[in-house]
Amino acid sequence: MPSPSVVTVGNAIVDIIAKADDAFIQDQGMEKSAMNLIDGDRAKSLYDAIGPAMEVSGGSAANTAVGIANLGGDSGFIGKISEDVMGRIFRHDISAAGVDFPPAYAEDNQTACSIILVTPDTQRTMNTYLGACLTLTPDDMNEELIAGADWVYLEGYLFDAPEGPACYQRAADIARANNTNVSVSLSDAWCVDRHYDALTKFLADHTDLILGNEDELHSLFPDADSLDTRLARLPELAGEAAITLGAKGSIAVTAHDKVRVDADQTIKVVDTTGAGDLYAAGYLFGRQRQDSLERSAEIATIAATEIISHIGARPQDDLSAKLG
Amino acid sequence: MPSPSVVTVGNAIVDIIAKADDAFIQDQGMEKSAMNLIDGDRAKSLYDAIGPAMEVSGGSAANTAVGIANLGGDSGFIGKISEDVMGRIFRHDISAAGVDFPPAYAEDNQTACSIILVTPDTQRTMNTYLGACLTLTPDDMNEELIAGADWVYLEGYLFDAPEGPACYQRAADIARANNTNVSVSLSDAWCVDRHYDALTKFLADHTDLILGNEDELHSLFPDADSLDTRLARLPELAGEAAITLGAKGSIAVTAHDKVRVDADQTIKVVDTTGAGDLYAAGYLFGRQRQDSLERSAEIATIAATEIISHIGARPQDDLSAKLG
Repeated sequence: MPSPSVVTVGNAIVDIIAKADDAFIQDQGMEKSAMNLIDGDRAKSLYDAIGPAMEVSGGSAANTAVGIANLGGDSGFIGKISEDVMGRIFRHDISAAGVDFPPAYAEDNQTACSIILVTPDTQRTMNTYLGACLTLTPDDMNEELIAGADWVYLEGYLFDAPEGPACYQRAADIARANNTNVSVSLSDAWCVDRHYDALTKFLADHTDLILGNEDELHSLFPDADSLDTRLARLPELAGEAAITLGAKGSIAVTAHDKVRVDADQTIKVVDTTGAGDLYAAGYLFGRQRQDSLERSAEIATIAATEIISHIGARPQDDLSAKLG
Repeated sequence: MPSPSVVTVGNAIVDIIAKADDAFIQDQGMEKSAMNLIDGDRAKSLYDAIGPAMEVSGGSAANTAVGIANLGGDSGFIGKISEDVMGRIFRHDISAAGVDFPPAYAEDNQTACSIILVTPDTQRTMNTYLGACLTLTPDDMNEELIAGADWVYLEGYLFDAPEGPACYQRAADIARANNTNVSVSLSDAWCVDRHYDALTKFLADHTDLILGNEDELHSLFPDADSLDTRLARLPELAGEAAITLGAKGSIAVTAHDKVRVDADQTIKVVDTTGAGDLYAAGYLFGRQRQDSLERSAEIATIAATEIISHIGARPQDDLSAKLG
């Protein structure tokens, strides 16, 4: 296997996806459309309370690695599972998708799961039990994979693990020593809020490319008064950024360039889970093969469009066939 | 909870669903579009060989019970699981769907799974490891549930378990003693072939309603020379039957009546897994509330149409809202 061009680092999660109405989200005290962190007991009681579900491998950065492989790229994934049923499912699915995943195993904790509730507005509200992911350490940052890659991609959610910031630093050190570009996903507006100082310092010091959405950008620049102002300030933190705007499309920016790509308005949106992850997959796939910002944002839109047309954050179609 | 109107009996299975091409089906020596029985070792090696998958609760009669509940009816399910992760998933999903499921647990065997491969023609080829289902015995035929129901529904696949025929007999005895109608799904053409003598005798002696498809009907009357001849011979075995014809719709027959309902040609078929199970759900839902053959076949078509529009054999939409 050639050294993957893009290596993503994140929480290794199996998604448990069910439909729910807004009243349920409210009654359960969840932050809607956000990633809510829960413990094992809460995961059990919440599972008992939800409707019929399906299980699909997930995890933000893992979804991105799978998307890149599905587009025809070479990708790898770094994350931690346990040797349990959900861990076997996670490992099978990501490996079968063509992603290079040398698994790291936690000794005691269970493989992480996220109970994802999809409301009639197609928004997803996540309830994540991190389990084995909480034990990720800098030693798990596979030096060979990151050193051999053109890009390493770190999800913001990693900051929720005790040694997440140290993992970020270790990944950045390996990247710098080996001319590997560093990209970061902002992941979630509340996650940006939780880890604001450490995350923004990392972005400014080590990051070549930021991926995020409008809400996350707002959390990044809470005192700025408009989207344009926020976009204009991105070069303070990274040379390049791609920001998704939901149904309004997306914008890719550098200090000198700004391109906008429309969303596909023709499809029926079923479940927005993974939209940002697959956008990131398409964008990174384009950039690692030297496509323009605009073409990369177009590929990103194609990948995100496929993922929101069905339940689950892993592609069901062959994305490479959609590139034209 | 009121006594359910319809109680279904069958194998309690969690489906592992992946896409595959025809060459893979052929290379693996599977009977395409059929239910292939496999053992635990084969399940492991096949899982390693398939592409990325998703896990959704399944099992033919269980899908039918869920469909009836989703349509707004009262249903129960009798089947055997194990106290493992897949068993917890199965139990959660069917209970959360509103089906009365007093679980029977196997002591040693694992909960059954079926590795379902969906080919580009949207056909599904199943590879079922029966596990805990092989230990189903006549004692598991919950007398209270069957006695209280208007209909008991037995899947043909039950004949593959060692005590399956005895389970059929026990269910029929309870039904007869309590004026519960008996319906049987033919399940699979190869399954009909495997158990021809015992199955046809049971149909002739104990069955009020047969559900099946064109291929299964062919297996039932292998010497008949046309669909019409086969349909005309159904009253030899049961007073009523509903036979699905794929894209050509379906036909419901009694000795005196014959109605045909067209399939919905407007939808994009994604995965035909569960089409027959949900057709049965709609038909039984209609008949248990005294709808006509035609209206029952229409409801059956609505339920089957929803299930083939997405991956997996459990409804993702609220079927009751589609009845009009």
